[in-house]
Amino acid sequence: VERSSATYEGFRGAGVRLRERLLPELGRLAGERTRPFLYALHAFDKAHAVMLVEEGLLPAEVGAELLQGLRSMEQEGVEEVRMRHGGALHSGEQFLIRTLGEDVGGRLHLGRSSGDLSSVGINIAQRDRLLVLTAAVNELRRVLLELAETHTGTVLPGYTFGQVAQPMTFAHLLLSWASTLERDFDRLHGCYRRVNVSAAGCVIMVGTDFPLNRERTAELLGFDRVHENAADAILELTTDDMTDAASAVAVLYHSLAKWADDLILWSTREVDFVVVPDRFCSTSSVMPQKRNVVGLAEVKGGAAEALGCVVTTFDALRGPTGLAINERHYALELLWRVCDSCLRDLGWLSELLPALQVRAERMHEVAAQEWASATDLAGALVRARDLPWRTAHQVVAVLIRLCEERGLGPNDVTPELLDEAARRYGREGVQLEIEAIQAALDPVRFVQARTLRGGPAATESQRQRELLHVQLLRDEETLGSAVERVASSAARLEQAIDAILASAA
Amino acid sequence: VERSSATYEGFRGAGVRLRERLLPELGRLAGERTRPFLYALHAFDKAHAVMLVEEGLLPAEVGAELLQGLRSMEQEGVEEVRMRHGGALHSGEQFLIRTLGEDVGGRLHLGRSSGDLSSVGINIAQRDRLLVLTAAVNELRRVLLELAETHTGTVLPGYTFGQVAQPMTFAHLLLSWASTLERDFDRLHGCYRRVNVSAAGCVIMVGTDFPLNRERTAELLGFDRVHENAADAILELTTDDMTDAASAVAVLYHSLAKWADDLILWSTREVDFVVVPDRFCSTSSVMPQKRNVVGLAEVKGGAAEALGCVVTTFDALRGPTGLAINERHYALELLWRVCDSCLRDLGWLSELLPALQVRAERMHEVAAQEWASATDLAGALVRARDLPWRTAHQVVAVLIRLCEERGLGPNDVTPELLDEAARRYGREGVQLEIEAIQAALDPVRFVQARTLRGGPAATESQRQRELLHVQLLRDEETLGSAVERVASSAARLEQAIDAILASAA
Amino acid sequence: VERSSATYEGFRGAGVRLRERLLPELGRLAGERTRPFLYALHAFDKAHAVMLVEEGLLPAEVGAELLQGLRSMEQEGVEEVRMRHGGALHSGEQFLIRTLGEDVGGRLHLGRSSGDLSSVGINIAQRDRLLVLTAAVNELRRVLLELAETHTGTVLPGYTFGQVAQPMTFAHLLLSWASTLERDFDRLHGCYRRVNVSAAGCVIMVGTDFPLNRERTAELLGFDRVHENAADAILELTTDDMTDAASAVAVLYHSLAKWADDLILWSTREVDFVVVPDRFCSTSSVMPQKRNVVGLAEVKGGAAEALGCVVTTFDALRGPTGLAINERHYALELLWRVCDSCLRDLGWLSELLPALQVRAERMHEVAAQEWASATDLAGALVRARDLPWRTAHQVVAVLIRLCEERGLGPNDVTPELLDEAARRYGREGVQLEIEAIQAALDPVRFVQARTLRGGPAATESQRQRELLHVQLLRDEETLGSAVERVASSAARLEQAIDAILASAA
Amino acid sequence: VERSSATYEGFRGAGVRLRERLLPELGRLAGERTRPFLYALHAFDKAHAVMLVEEGLLPAEVGAELLQGLRSMEQEGVEEVRMRHGGALHSGEQFLIRTLGEDVGGRLHLGRSSGDLSSVGINIAQRDRLLVLTAAVNELRRVLLELAETHTGTVLPGYTFGQVAQPMTFAHLLLSWASTLERDFDRLHGCYRRVNVSAAGCVIMVGTDFPLNRERTAELLGFDRVHENAADAILELTTDDMTDAASAVAVLYHSLAKWADDLILWSTREVDFVVVPDRFCSTSSVMPQKRNVVGLAEVKGGAAEALGCVVTTFDALRGPTGLAINERHYALELLWRVCDSCLRDLGWLSELLPALQVRAERMHEVAAQEWASATDLAGALVRARDLPWRTAHQVVAVLIRLCEERGLGPNDVTPELLDEAARRYGREGVQLEIEAIQAALDPVRFVQARTLRGGPAATESQRQRELLHVQLLRDEETLGSAVERVASSAARLEQAIDAILASAA
Repeated sequence: VERSSATYEGFRGAGVRLRERLLPELGRLAGERTRPFLYALHAFDKAHAVMLVEEGLLPAEVGAELLQGLRSMEQEGVEEVRMRHGGALHSGEQFLIRTLGEDVGGRLHLGRSSGDLSSVGINIAQRDRLLVLTAAVNELRRVLLELAETHTGTVLPGYTFGQVAQPMTFAHLLLSWASTLERDFDRLHGCYRRVNVSAAGCVIMVGTDFPLNRERTAELLGFDRVHENAADAILELTTDDMTDAASAVAVLYHSLAKWADDLILWSTREVDFVVVPDRFCSTSSVMPQKRNVVGLAEVKGGAAEALGCVVTTFDALRGPTGLAINERHYALELLWRVCDSCLRDLGWLSELLPALQVRAERMHEVAAQEWASATDLAGALVRARDLPWRTAHQVVAVLIRLCEERGLGPNDVTPELLDEAARRYGREGVQLEIEAIQAALDPVRFVQARTLRGGPAATESQRQRELLHVQLLRDEETLGSAVERVASSAARLEQAIDAILASAA
Repeated sequence: VERSSATYEGFRGAGVRLRERLLPELGRLAGERTRPFLYALHAFDKAHAVMLVEEGLLPAEVGAELLQGLRSMEQEGVEEVRMRHGGALHSGEQFLIRTLGEDVGGRLHLGRSSGDLSSVGINIAQRDRLLVLTAAVNELRRVLLELAETHTGTVLPGYTFGQVAQPMTFAHLLLSWASTLERDFDRLHGCYRRVNVSAAGCVIMVGTDFPLNRERTAELLGFDRVHENAADAILELTTDDMTDAASAVAVLYHSLAKWADDLILWSTREVDFVVVPDRFCSTSSVMPQKRNVVGLAEVKGGAAEALGCVVTTFDALRGPTGLAINERHYALELLWRVCDSCLRDLGWLSELLPALQVRAERMHEVAAQEWASATDLAGALVRARDLPWRTAHQVVAVLIRLCEERGLGPNDVTPELLDEAARRYGREGVQLEIEAIQAALDPVRFVQARTLRGGPAATESQRQRELLHVQLLRDEETLGSAVERVASSAARLEQAIDAILASAA
Repeated sequence: VERSSATYEGFRGAGVRLRERLLPELGRLAGERTRPFLYALHAFDKAHAVMLVEEGLLPAEVGAELLQGLRSMEQEGVEEVRMRHGGALHSGEQFLIRTLGEDVGGRLHLGRSSGDLSSVGINIAQRDRLLVLTAAVNELRRVLLELAETHTGTVLPGYTFGQVAQPMTFAHLLLSWASTLERDFDRLHGCYRRVNVSAAGCVIMVGTDFPLNRERTAELLGFDRVHENAADAILELTTDDMTDAASAVAVLYHSLAKWADDLILWSTREVDFVVVPDRFCSTSSVMPQKRNVVGLAEVKGGAAEALGCVVTTFDALRGPTGLAINERHYALELLWRVCDSCLRDLGWLSELLPALQVRAERMHEVAAQEWASATDLAGALVRARDLPWRTAHQVVAVLIRLCEERGLGPNDVTPELLDEAARRYGREGVQLEIEAIQAALDPVRFVQARTLRGGPAATESQRQRELLHVQLLRDEETLGSAVERVASSAARLEQAIDAILASAA
Repeated sequence: VERSSATYEGFRGAGVRLRERLLPELGRLAGERTRPFLYALHAFDKAHAVMLVEEGLLPAEVGAELLQGLRSMEQEGVEEVRMRHGGALHSGEQFLIRTLGEDVGGRLHLGRSSGDLSSVGINIAQRDRLLVLTAAVNELRRVLLELAETHTGTVLPGYTFGQVAQPMTFAHLLLSWASTLERDFDRLHGCYRRVNVSAAGCVIMVGTDFPLNRERTAELLGFDRVHENAADAILELTTDDMTDAASAVAVLYHSLAKWADDLILWSTREVDFVVVPDRFCSTSSVMPQKRNVVGLAEVKGGAAEALGCVVTTFDALRGPTGLAINERHYALELLWRVCDSCLRDLGWLSELLPALQVRAERMHEVAAQEWASATDLAGALVRARDLPWRTAHQVVAVLIRLCEERGLGPNDVTPELLDEAARRYGREGVQLEIEAIQAALDPVRFVQARTLRGGPAATESQRQRELLHVQLLRDEETLGSAVERVASSAARLEQAIDAILASAA
């Protein structure tokens, strides 16, 4: 049988191991799936060739031909050229065999397999996504800390069960959001550390008996270290690697969706705490009054997709060791879509929050009129009359019921009314002065009095803000080093190629 | 209205804030839900009372009465007494008011709320579960490392796509499992660190204006530190805390289920690699031949429940800040069931694996007969004939197809057959000696030759085993400190109570 | 070996097929899992014995002994006696062998297996749950239709994107809920029809060669028909049966949760459309003003559990045919918990909705003040001035923006303002009269004008209500027949037993 | 302000209701999302214009201009032209205003809204997908029934818990698959019936006060009927419509994945029951022996995505009525991807199954050697020696344990060995003849004896096959009518347009 390298169809061609050609749709899927990490496969092809030459496993002149060939793809665009040659894991080899012949191009794959190709390719792509995602998390943290600084005096009610709870400040809430994101950085950077480990040279779970230099390949690809167990290196994608990453992104997204829900609710005319900038809003084709906060609805949709992604990931990877291989692509495609949406939404929140029109008077109004500070009226009774907490609380509870029945609000409370409530609870009148009552029910005073560690008083918010800022600086530095390491490895790889090309010239 | 403390029905009784009594079923639910953390609420009640006395917020003699009352519950059993008093967050106060009157019992709750009660109670219970779970993870790691030591020479095939891939050893696979569990420890201990933070004094997201000593309460309850932002402290349960923990347990369980699937498959008569001890097996009521590995099926069921728990958790907690409160109990109940099942299954695997009958000859037989080492026949061609890797690989692929067509196995390969394959691929005969062919196809040699970092050769397995062992020792120490800290805080709490009782006596 | 029937440990006892005893925890699990369908297993034991006697496969006197034995369990309580004998599928046989000896008790199981025992037991339990669940769905439909009758004039705004959309009536919304539930009945009754099919006699996917009368057993157990393919009968539980049922319940619960969310939102002081009865509400231990609608939060939690149940079900049943057996119990336990919660919540909604305090003036106020009828101002321009719809809509959109900028509401619109808006949109003044403007913006008129099929006008609501009522009657009849069939089969079974006992006496 | 229709940017343009332009990414998303149903929106635009003219709500000449305009898009391609004009729900209006001016194009939207546009568009697209999906289900049913006919004598073991259970035939199993698919047709066609209902004219939950002819629009679009409640029509997408459809597809996919798992397992060299055609297989880049059944792995991945889609759908649609609008697109995109994958996989299975190489001797070998018929040896003891079933079963269980211990197989059983087992169980020797033993253990006889209704005997398989075939014919007819109705409505629409154009000419 005469075979021409120029029309080489790949090692799975009909008539070698198998008789029939692969279903075209299966080939198409294999190609499309690698599209997001063709650039990473390309880097691996180059790094592997460099290492083979450096270790004497490939003659320098053959290595130079291969590397020249790979570089030649870069003019036109790596993705385009590789997709033209079928895409998929072996698009580099395919291109090289077709253009340089099997005697040259057929030497690239020594000591590698689809196993390390996909692990390295996916891990690089996943690592790079995590780097941009954590950068966006940090950016949002920075935005929140800045915004908090201007809102330590913006009093609004907190909510539990959807009902007005106690007064806090907008700054206090924003700082709690920043605290959550601090943990998200920690989780996502943990994923980064676990994923940025080199499987190159691990082949199909057992490595090879060709004396590769795994550390060198890892270094040229920006990995932090090499996997110590080749089975773990290849299997990790189907045990804990992707389930871990999908979960961590979903946890982050869950919080973003919660805050989106807050802002959507606050944008209703009934609550009216904020006005979201017009550019995030749509209107209706028939209801001219409409101002729909559509940008934030996207955040919620993305979070729902992230949860579906978690389920697809776990479920797709079920079964004995090594069974689920192609199945994981259904998870990966989803995961990367979700990462992209999440990046978009972190960006949107970073843009939207500082542009938010905060309706501080309305916030104060609700806090003042809806009894948010009632707790402190009970507190005043404890202090002034040494009532047990529970007794004081029940007396005020009776008071509020009476007010409700009589259509009265916090401003209508009088010492007499309070005494009536006390008597109804079986206590003597408590005879609290009107000034004490009014002070107790004032939400601004309520907040200012909460100087306890963790509280919403302005000074305490400043303290928390600084703590969060210090940690943000630390995390930005951690992230900066990681980015720098990846960037410098790319430069190192090109230098190594230059050296081989020069010596072969 | 005359009210008798002896029949105190709690602060939500009809006729105070609300007119109707609560639906009995809602009361029952509230009680049942706290059952798993009543012990933690009890500790918090004690610690809070101690702190109030120490800070002068409660007269020592009142504090002593309260503490005496709380201790009196311990004779009969905290859970039983509290459930008799309705269970739920305020069962301590309820008991104290009923037995000591509202003037004493009604003073316990000063500066607290349901918010910090449930956060503290749930966090302690979750922390304690994570401690036993990580201990069981470490125990299984230890079992795996010991078992690996005896199986560095047990050759079996690896599998991808469910098909025989390349030879490895059982030790090599066990070490990959231990590597996975090392990461699980890391993830779960991360959850521990994030959850073991005190919300006591954070009340309803804003703390209180009574000058509590939050650090003291935290210390008496074994927390590592206090939450710095009270909103975050209370909201964390509905942002990232439970979603994080549910995910981490599901990730661990996913791996356990995968290994269970391996062992179930290996226990079939068709594969026949292992015999699981009888005590994990059932038989059939009609098929007397049956030997069903039911114990491992439980592991898989538990993992599926863990995934459902993740979904319930994320989904139950959706919505604006502070909306989902009772909803989270549907997630928590599931989470704790899942933790219990997972603990059971870690224990079962730790018992089952060393008791496994490993059928090493059958493993070797499959590796030898199913062409697992074919890669190295291609490698031999590369070395002996300087064929490009791809060419060598394709020649062997043709060879195997010919053997398949002719009903021949690896032992039937001759130099002539290999030459025929080469010619069919358009190459001259490669003239490899029969000894080289046989050596290449020998799975034992295959494994021994893989001494590359990460490989399955015995020496390399030993190296990896030691690395894993060193980290296990470190993690056991980390865990030991955490356990010790919790234990000593409990002692400290009792001492503080003794001191108050003594001084009040 | 001497074996005493009195201490018979079951066919899986140590020393028969297997050497070791089963792990106690595995035995405990097997027992606990059957608890919810022990009554169904008991019925199957009786029906099977009856059929064996009737078909001459069991001597009448032996059959009478068995049936007498089974009936004797009923005095003390079937569940209790069976659990004392280990519970599980074979607790009937176990009891009979222990009390009557193996020579009698050992004859019960002829022509059956664990396969049909669990299929029959689970299907009966699932069928019975579906019957009560669909009855509760119908009850809620009835409640909604009654409530709708009294609210055809209660005008409130609809919402899209969380923002005020167009006026409708409360009746109109309630009728849409009833329409949804009509489909839920259809789906759930479809599950009933698919599940109420007899697997008795299908043994382990292939039936038996003893000439059973499958139709007779089915008839005695209230099944509609027998499975036509024994493999399908036994496998259905792991293919589509449980996934189908879990999904159908989750779909129903999803709607209930949505309506719970509506009512919770409407109960906030900011929206204030309804007041939920006190018995569904709690208050706070520190915030005396609180009125938390906790009953409805449970509905949402239950719906989240239902979604987790769907995931657990699909995921637990993954894998090749016949692999997942014990795994399914993790799904079943969840499914039945979810069914119980859903039944509770259907009941709660049926109680709560008629007891709801509907604040019709507040509803009208929001509809009137928040431009809900703005569409019809555009419509008025179309009619009066023959403007294209889009032009009219845009003119009103400009108008509303101007009002927003100037702090004006719908009552402040004047012909001049409308003309200004028109000119700003590049049109001549439209010169609409103030009466026309006011009429257009009146939500009551808006609703009354919507007499188009499907619209909220009172007459149209009545028409829809009647349609829904007719279908409800039909569905109640369908359900009634099913309930009746099950009940009469139970009577027929007892009669058949009586006949055998009589003839043997 | 001068506005040129030629550059009309849509009703949400800056300077009308809102000041800022929409974020470009939000516009892009809105466009992309409608791409799959632009053809349906186009049909609705046409049908709506026809109905407006017919009802006298639009002058015939204006209607003719609009319809001419819409038809003009069809030359170049509806999707292309509409995407060029921004895509999205209002791309028809946008195009018409730009090309015909606002005075003409602005008249299209009378009495419609984004609400019915998206409901109609999505429902048509969903309906059309369900039609092709159910057709593919029927095609696979036909394939299974044909294949079953040739395999009524192909004996193989059934499996439970992954272990050999009892003999059946391949036909018997295929018929169980066809039974499952019969139910899938029922479920999916139920979705079709529920989704093929017209929301046209329901606007934003309340219809309009322009006197539309809803029945006419429905008829022109191939809907079976109109929604009776406008709120239900628009809300259904977020209550039960999409959750129902996503679930039904996931239920179907679950079974397909299970069968894929069967075939993958059966393709392993260890089991070796079938050989999947080469075109569904890949090989490895380093392991030349590999034959990976990748085509079937895709089915499993698709099923995992379907489960994720269920979760995304339920989760995305959470929240109060009308809140989740854009969120649902995250569910829809997934749902339609899943439908496409499922269609692909139904096609693959229909192609693959008849092309499967069935290794009947190997199947028989496993059935014969692995004691699959042991049940009938117990049965023989019951018949020949009147042993109670349980006693007979236990005796055979002891026998098999003895054989296992002594390395004996079914062919080695002698009357003496059986007697030894009986004595070990405490019974006298049973003295069964060797011929009876051998007959009992013969899997072919085992299967032939199972003529009981539901059993695998050939005649019974034929009976079942015919039942299934009759129902298939019925379902094909049902589906054919639905397809025909949709097709004829399309013709009717074009005729109505022709009539308007003719009368206006």
